[in-house]
Amino acid sequence: MTPADRAVLACCLEVAGTPKPGNVDRERDHPDMRFEHMLAGAQGAAPGLRLAAGGGAIGPAFERAVAGMYRAAGRNTHVGALLLLVPLVRADELAGPVLEGLVEETTVADARAFYRAFDGVPVAVDDPPTGAADLDVRRGVDALEAVDDRGITLSEVLALAAPRDDVAREWTVGFERSLAAASMLAETQGPIELRVAETYLQLLAERPDSLVVTRHGEAVAAEVVERAAALVDDGGVSEARTEVAAFADELVDRGVNPGTTADITAAGTYVALERGWLP
Amino acid sequence: MTPADRAVLACCLEVAGTPKPGNVDRERDHPDMRFEHMLAGAQGAAPGLRLAAGGGAIGPAFERAVAGMYRAAGRNTHVGALLLLVPLVRADELAGPVLEGLVEETTVADARAFYRAFDGVPVAVDDPPTGAADLDVRRGVDALEAVDDRGITLSEVLALAAPRDDVAREWTVGFERSLAAASMLAETQGPIELRVAETYLQLLAERPDSLVVTRHGEAVAAEVVERAAALVDDGGVSEARTEVAAFADELVDRGVNPGTTADITAAGTYVALERGWLP
Repeated sequence: MTPADRAVLACCLEVAGTPKPGNVDRERDHPDMRFEHMLAGAQGAAPGLRLAAGGGAIGPAFERAVAGMYRAAGRNTHVGALLLLVPLVRADELAGPVLEGLVEETTVADARAFYRAFDGVPVAVDDPPTGAADLDVRRGVDALEAVDDRGITLSEVLALAAPRDDVAREWTVGFERSLAAASMLAETQGPIELRVAETYLQLLAERPDSLVVTRHGEAVAAEVVERAAALVDDGGVSEARTEVAAFADELVDRGVNPGTTADITAAGTYVALERGWLP
Repeated sequence: MTPADRAVLACCLEVAGTPKPGNVDRERDHPDMRFEHMLAGAQGAAPGLRLAAGGGAIGPAFERAVAGMYRAAGRNTHVGALLLLVPLVRADELAGPVLEGLVEETTVADARAFYRAFDGVPVAVDDPPTGAADLDVRRGVDALEAVDDRGITLSEVLALAAPRDDVAREWTVGFERSLAAASMLAETQGPIELRVAETYLQLLAERPDSLVVTRHGEAVAAEVVERAAALVDDGGVSEARTEVAAFADELVDRGVNPGTTADITAAGTYVALERGWLP
């Protein structure tokens, strides 16, 4: 397998991981997003991931990956995960400082490709910070003029989003949670689908999920953290599987989807595969 | 997606298809082969599939695909499926006569690569026909001398196996069941995982599964056909899902694994993806 192959596999193993409260997993679908859409979206991203792995610029590789994902799955299955995986497969080394240096080298052209990627692809993000409404990613190509006028690079765009979006935040902190997720995975035991679910639960207990904050507000996000932390204290998936599964069913029923935590889990799974930490 | 990407996706969608009596599916694992092994094996085959799609010779591409599968999954997850998918991704057109012509062009060098592929990879096949014990695929590289002495091509090797192995048989009949499976898939409705399971059940009702014959004998294989046919008569997965699921649980409990039927389902899924018959 090549790095791009491992990135696709990481997305497949992430979605197979179960129980993953609130997300699509081997045992749960969302009303508008089924397990098989996740498999198709991951595979559809493969050509874009290969572009990045071959040394292509990050923005255009991301644009290509998102376009392939959307064509294959007909929906946004992996935009957040790809925003992490594209730099990860592009990097010469999976180390914080190397990744920070890599994303700092992104350009205005990368930012333009990033906005083009969102054209016609629905994405759930919070409102942009005051004074940056013209850079709202939901504007797609309509934001290109603002990108040019400001001469803003992709890493600068994501730095603006970082306070409200933990995927963007990864770009500003050397992918620290993605790398930490890989270490968590390495410390788990048993079948991969349980190890992935265990890691996801630990990440969920760590910080409020950005997507949950955006869609349901900070109170719901804080409740999810608290309940995930209690389940971790109860021994996590390996020792309290029934309780974790019940929480998973409940969140799916409530439509509460901690998608950002799933994105970081996918990124961590990639890093663990790349380091040989998963069989 | 490229043809090789679609072949990997076909394997992922095949294993996600549920309920698929006797095989690993989204809801069932085997004691020694879990769902996640199937995902890893499919992705591991990607470099070999790309070799074939790029015009590489069929034998070496198969050898590479099997080696990558085995390295990724640690077990034989897709050898049969790859023996169908490698020629399918290599073909200029997915039509019986084109596929027959393609496999007829295989050489002694392809046969040598085929035997090398099996070196160290456990495979369940029937005994070879009388007078061909030296070509038993389970001999791996020990069979190479016989291949050279006989000057036998890969399509000739598979023609010898065809009467007892329905994957090998596909090579001798223009991949007729793989192409028919794609048409069956096109006629089904609903989520892909149900469409795949429906197609698998129809194939299972059609002919005794070669792997079941090899491992459990003709009587068990005939029983499986009869019971699958009764379930098809009852309306198949869409109308008798509970009964099909019970049959699936029973076959997994008994260790009866119609793996050849799963291989042909994966090949049919690839053809359906390639023709745009699946969303």
